[in-house]
Amino acid sequence: MKRTFRLILDCPDQVGIVTRVGEMITRHGGWISEAAHHSDEDSNRFFSRIEILADSLSFGIEELREKFEPMIDEYQMNLRLVDSATPKKVVLMASKGSHCLSDLLDRWKSGDLDCEISCVISNHTGMQGLVEWYGIPYHHVVIDKENKAPGFAQVEGLVDEYDADCVVLARYMQILPQALCEKYRHRVINIHHSFLPSFIGAKPYHQASRRGVKLIGATCHYVTEQLDEGPIIDQDVARVTHSDKVEDLVRLGKDVEKTVLARGLRDHLEDRILVHGNKTVVFS
Amino acid sequence: MKRTFRLILDCPDQVGIVTRVGEMITRHGGWISEAAHHSDEDSNRFFSRIEILADSLSFGIEELREKFEPMIDEYQMNLRLVDSATPKKVVLMASKGSHCLSDLLDRWKSGDLDCEISCVISNHTGMQGLVEWYGIPYHHVVIDKENKAPGFAQVEGLVDEYDADCVVLARYMQILPQALCEKYRHRVINIHHSFLPSFIGAKPYHQASRRGVKLIGATCHYVTEQLDEGPIIDQDVARVTHSDKVEDLVRLGKDVEKTVLARGLRDHLEDRILVHGNKTVVFS
Amino acid sequence: MKRTFRLILDCPDQVGIVTRVGEMITRHGGWISEAAHHSDEDSNRFFSRIEILADSLSFGIEELREKFEPMIDEYQMNLRLVDSATPKKVVLMASKGSHCLSDLLDRWKSGDLDCEISCVISNHTGMQGLVEWYGIPYHHVVIDKENKAPGFAQVEGLVDEYDADCVVLARYMQILPQALCEKYRHRVINIHHSFLPSFIGAKPYHQASRRGVKLIGATCHYVTEQLDEGPIIDQDVARVTHSDKVEDLVRLGKDVEKTVLARGLRDHLEDRILVHGNKTVVFS
Amino acid sequence: MKRTFRLILDCPDQVGIVTRVGEMITRHGGWISEAAHHSDEDSNRFFSRIEILADSLSFGIEELREKFEPMIDEYQMNLRLVDSATPKKVVLMASKGSHCLSDLLDRWKSGDLDCEISCVISNHTGMQGLVEWYGIPYHHVVIDKENKAPGFAQVEGLVDEYDADCVVLARYMQILPQALCEKYRHRVINIHHSFLPSFIGAKPYHQASRRGVKLIGATCHYVTEQLDEGPIIDQDVARVTHSDKVEDLVRLGKDVEKTVLARGLRDHLEDRILVHGNKTVVFS
Repeated sequence: MKRTFRLILDCPDQVGIVTRVGEMITRHGGWISEAAHHSDEDSNRFFSRIEILADSLSFGIEELREKFEPMIDEYQMNLRLVDSATPKKVVLMASKGSHCLSDLLDRWKSGDLDCEISCVISNHTGMQGLVEWYGIPYHHVVIDKENKAPGFAQVEGLVDEYDADCVVLARYMQILPQALCEKYRHRVINIHHSFLPSFIGAKPYHQASRRGVKLIGATCHYVTEQLDEGPIIDQDVARVTHSDKVEDLVRLGKDVEKTVLARGLRDHLEDRILVHGNKTVVFS
Repeated sequence: MKRTFRLILDCPDQVGIVTRVGEMITRHGGWISEAAHHSDEDSNRFFSRIEILADSLSFGIEELREKFEPMIDEYQMNLRLVDSATPKKVVLMASKGSHCLSDLLDRWKSGDLDCEISCVISNHTGMQGLVEWYGIPYHHVVIDKENKAPGFAQVEGLVDEYDADCVVLARYMQILPQALCEKYRHRVINIHHSFLPSFIGAKPYHQASRRGVKLIGATCHYVTEQLDEGPIIDQDVARVTHSDKVEDLVRLGKDVEKTVLARGLRDHLEDRILVHGNKTVVFS
Repeated sequence: MKRTFRLILDCPDQVGIVTRVGEMITRHGGWISEAAHHSDEDSNRFFSRIEILADSLSFGIEELREKFEPMIDEYQMNLRLVDSATPKKVVLMASKGSHCLSDLLDRWKSGDLDCEISCVISNHTGMQGLVEWYGIPYHHVVIDKENKAPGFAQVEGLVDEYDADCVVLARYMQILPQALCEKYRHRVINIHHSFLPSFIGAKPYHQASRRGVKLIGATCHYVTEQLDEGPIIDQDVARVTHSDKVEDLVRLGKDVEKTVLARGLRDHLEDRILVHGNKTVVFS
Repeated sequence: MKRTFRLILDCPDQVGIVTRVGEMITRHGGWISEAAHHSDEDSNRFFSRIEILADSLSFGIEELREKFEPMIDEYQMNLRLVDSATPKKVVLMASKGSHCLSDLLDRWKSGDLDCEISCVISNHTGMQGLVEWYGIPYHHVVIDKENKAPGFAQVEGLVDEYDADCVVLARYMQILPQALCEKYRHRVINIHHSFLPSFIGAKPYHQASRRGVKLIGATCHYVTEQLDEGPIIDQDVARVTHSDKVEDLVRLGKDVEKTVLARGLRDHLEDRILVHGNKTVVFS
């Protein structure tokens, strides 16, 4: 993987944006290794993600940012520049269910998730030894049913302390406080165990079983104040039949959950996701 | 396809049902070519579908039915016996959209749907010539927005007259009167253009686009008094992205709709579907 | 669908191509509505497809082509410019099996395939009436087992006469002469009823059944002199089980065949496919 | 999961087998909780798998076996009786790639694989600590390129010593000696990283990339003397595009590999797989 600078931007659509951006890059010898654009007709908004080989420029990312300053004003751009060589810091949160956590850890160790895993926070201790085998700090933070505030204060303290770029709820069975979600807006990724918007809320596999659906699903989304209603990043499904009991749905669903969460996280880590309103543009 | 008698039954679960049924069949030399069973633990109910080669018995389906009479009482069975040599009579209903209708007609002509298509009823005339090329009567029944009763009376008259075993709403964009649905309970099959229970009601692709889902779906179900809430027969999905506009969802959805409707109808024609409560057992 | 000029090009990769092309378009007020690029690292070759809104330019496609002339030389480009308002002329070829033909005709009539269907050529007559109902000329060309040359000469004559942009083998069960394939290189699209490169050659479903595979597939590809070895455009699969006989594979495969062929044809009609070597770049 | 006795049998097909077997079970009060049958028309062979609730019988599995003795002779049956309460002993073999191993270990710990994992054998040491965290013995057995015999003798010794019911090659990159495969016939499960029969042999993802396929796959199969040609248990695929390099295929393929291997192993552990010739009947 060659080092790149990732340019992610959105702005009101108009003629010539791609070219202006391209000119700026080319003028300085920048080699574009990947580029994707999207014009949303409903909102008349333009979205773009461009990867520039770092070696092809004679200066660094800060100077590149400065060069784009005038364009930001002119086009009313939201613009981010990200150095692929700076891995994002990720905090994983999990409860008892180990499938997503175990899956992410193996992907990370195998080099398939380009990030630093700062720590794992859990309200259970069952996976502590495994997490530590991976060389990752494990924090057991009890969430007291009667008084959740202290527990979540501790969680927030840890996330802040690790200076997390991203928080992944890897089947963390607690609802995060709204303030925390807002502080880390579009940086908290959840996996919901249903094909949203079906079966919002608790026990979706039980709901699915009662409704008699023939496919179950999972949805990776950014967490917002509205539970299970944040911008969807990715979804997938698995086939079930009348002979599958709730516990079978739970088991079959795990494969979908872990795969979809890992795909969504990977897209996030590679800065492929742009949020607008309650929807995502995913340049994958 | 060898001629078979299909035995479809459900009853409270208890020891020995399969064996008792099997004994009855074997005692008369019946060759079981296919058998499937299901015990529903929640309702403690047993479901079974058995195909017996007609040639292996020395008598006909009526006599076979008589032999099962005592068992029906003893086990409080719902029991149906169906002769595979008697094709079901199907009434197709369609509006402007031709993809499901055209698809079903080709499958039927190719021998992949074992039924008689009694007629097509439509509130539009665009497909009349094509339907008639297939040698099938076409009835144009206008549904007047202001006064739907006369139109639906005509529809019901036709369905009755053709003595339909099954009515297929092949993207028929009108809501059938409740009385008609009840009269043909579990024999009216609809294709809804969403992954139910998501996006119940009108314009599901518009709803899907607004929600920003990453998969769209279609659901084949029996029509009941509750719109889009009948027992689900089959479902499937297709992947979409941020770059797919509503019209793309509509187009991509067509493939899912026609495939799922055809699968569901085929299962119905082969008596593979047993309804209990609002769910289906599908022995496919 | 707004009218666009599609610019499709490939050339040796180097810095600044996208920008140079973009500058040329922007300089003349061209509005890029869609753009996709690909750099193939193995061959160090660059591929691009750009759609420009025709209305945004003050001149026509010929003048646009002229403006690109110098760049073609400089960058050793293969460059095509296509007007989306000029539908491609497609010749469909079919044998007895009707599923792909019927499916394509309905898609075309529904407006989902942007082309002109010049004619259908078949070595059978079963579908003549249906094709003519669609208002499309039907040519029955017998291919004599003992002497195929005259039949194929007639086929070639028709394809030439209709000035076809594209020939679609919609389950046409004859092998086209090599000369014809070369004449219409990368313009003859076939659907092979297996997941290539598995089960090359005759009776792939029989081969699949013998091998005991758990998925069957279909492959849409450009026809080249090597049977079933041309560049792959699209593929898909369907799940099968031990209980599916060869005739079930054939039936289940039809759904995959017609869906994959239609997707591949649509990509071809929208000039989304670039061939290099024996592979395709598909900008979908 | 209630304890059951699993009856797995195959024999030449004839009238009344199911009933005779059912009578035997019912006569002794046996409650059949699950039953599946298959008649293979080509070979005229009958296959069956029946689960009987252990509690419903007044005797154990040995006595049940004795009761079936006469039937075995009469029908020339292969018959196995398995107690679901006796977990199978599984030996896992792995090389450097950790995704399948890590996935199976988490499934096992989560209770989704009903077996005993006797040990892990590997020609690498990277995963030793993780395996031991799960409380499973780890054996590092070097396979010397120049002289593989001693290594494989050690492997065979371990498999014998642990009295393994089943050996799982979880991306074990060595070819097992033929004698070992024959000794554990239909009990050595491999995951091949292609959609067999495509891309038999080494580096299938490189082969797939060269051929330009649009789907990659994985195949779980029993190992036989013919490399990659044993009976297929399960397969699945994932979509790829021209922009996916070989390393992307490798990464995307991992998800398919681990999911398919786990499904196949689960079916094996539940005695759902019957092999005949080079094919499998999978009662799932």
